[in-house]
Amino acid sequence: MLHEPTKIPQATTKRLPLYYRFIQNFANAGQKRISSQELSEAMKIDSATIRRDFSYLGAFGKKGYGYDVQGLLEFFRKTLDQDEATNVALIGVGHLGSAFLKYNFQRNHNTKIVLAFDTNSPLEGERISGIDTYHPDRIEEKIAEYGIEVVILTVPSRSAQEVTDRLAKTDIKGILNFTPVRIAVPEHIRVQTIDLSVELQTLIYQIKQQ
Amino acid sequence: MLHEPTKIPQATTKRLPLYYRFIQNFANAGQKRISSQELSEAMKIDSATIRRDFSYLGAFGKKGYGYDVQGLLEFFRKTLDQDEATNVALIGVGHLGSAFLKYNFQRNHNTKIVLAFDTNSPLEGERISGIDTYHPDRIEEKIAEYGIEVVILTVPSRSAQEVTDRLAKTDIKGILNFTPVRIAVPEHIRVQTIDLSVELQTLIYQIKQQ
Repeated sequence: MLHEPTKIPQATTKRLPLYYRFIQNFANAGQKRISSQELSEAMKIDSATIRRDFSYLGAFGKKGYGYDVQGLLEFFRKTLDQDEATNVALIGVGHLGSAFLKYNFQRNHNTKIVLAFDTNSPLEGERISGIDTYHPDRIEEKIAEYGIEVVILTVPSRSAQEVTDRLAKTDIKGILNFTPVRIAVPEHIRVQTIDLSVELQTLIYQIKQQ
Repeated sequence: MLHEPTKIPQATTKRLPLYYRFIQNFANAGQKRISSQELSEAMKIDSATIRRDFSYLGAFGKKGYGYDVQGLLEFFRKTLDQDEATNVALIGVGHLGSAFLKYNFQRNHNTKIVLAFDTNSPLEGERISGIDTYHPDRIEEKIAEYGIEVVILTVPSRSAQEVTDRLAKTDIKGILNFTPVRIAVPEHIRVQTIDLSVELQTLIYQIKQQ
């Protein structure tokens, strides 16, 4: 029923972790089969979109039967690499950064912030919310030492590109960018930008259009 | 050159505030004309996408001349309704909520959090980071009093739907949802969900696919 995914559209990719979480809930509730309609109602996503997404993944439901919950679950677990832990570093322990340190992605057991940097932290390091936090002068050295693959960037705008340039010299592969700056990176680094002002402005624009 | 937008795709809509910000920068730097290539380099967005987006908006650049910066600026200002202030309330002053209160969208002069709610705040209210903060028992009354149109939801997951049901009885038009819950709302309320765990997991998934 399920085979290896090929080229999956970006919009589908963004929904995968959500599917995974909802299918886990249905599995935990003891459900064996699920229809795209049921998922649609639970997730507030159009059922045609769900069927199309699943077909990209190589999962095809049977009419009047739906999808096999355990099959989907194993597929998403494998696809999303939940078995492999990813070490995350946070750069910039300001208001937003310290909220992330305290929250620390509690629902993702295999994704943890294990290292942080802040200009107010000493060279020899300190513990903030239980996380080792160093002065940014030690970025290159500590990122190698902790085997960091992903960085969450919550520095002030004026420092964003400078910090990114230093990160580009390390082995990191991705940056979750919370600054409004469109940072420039080498090709091997992926950037996901979340600009909170833009999200708010977009929502307001959509409301005013109605 | 510019006329009223008709049906604009969602993906284009999301880029409008970004375009607006970058065009402001070019205008502030005294630039009179801008090509899609220049914008593309500054914004790290494909120039064909920019030209397509602008054509949806009814803005057409001239070959070898580009777009008129002031024309674009006025158009975006009008489209994004920057002249009209939007009152925003924040519900849930935990770690993430208090980061938002302190930050308070400083770059958006016409978008301000003017009211907050938290279960630890007294009925008679208190000031947190300069913002009037009340106990959630007064949601309906205070949202009407402050003329709130948009709510930022940073409550614990278990309270998300209950708070949303109360908001549905007020005159609000939009919710920026930072909880992982897919909240159910009546048709006249728009929801924009930002699930930080999902954003991080998506980035990691994309990295592991490479």
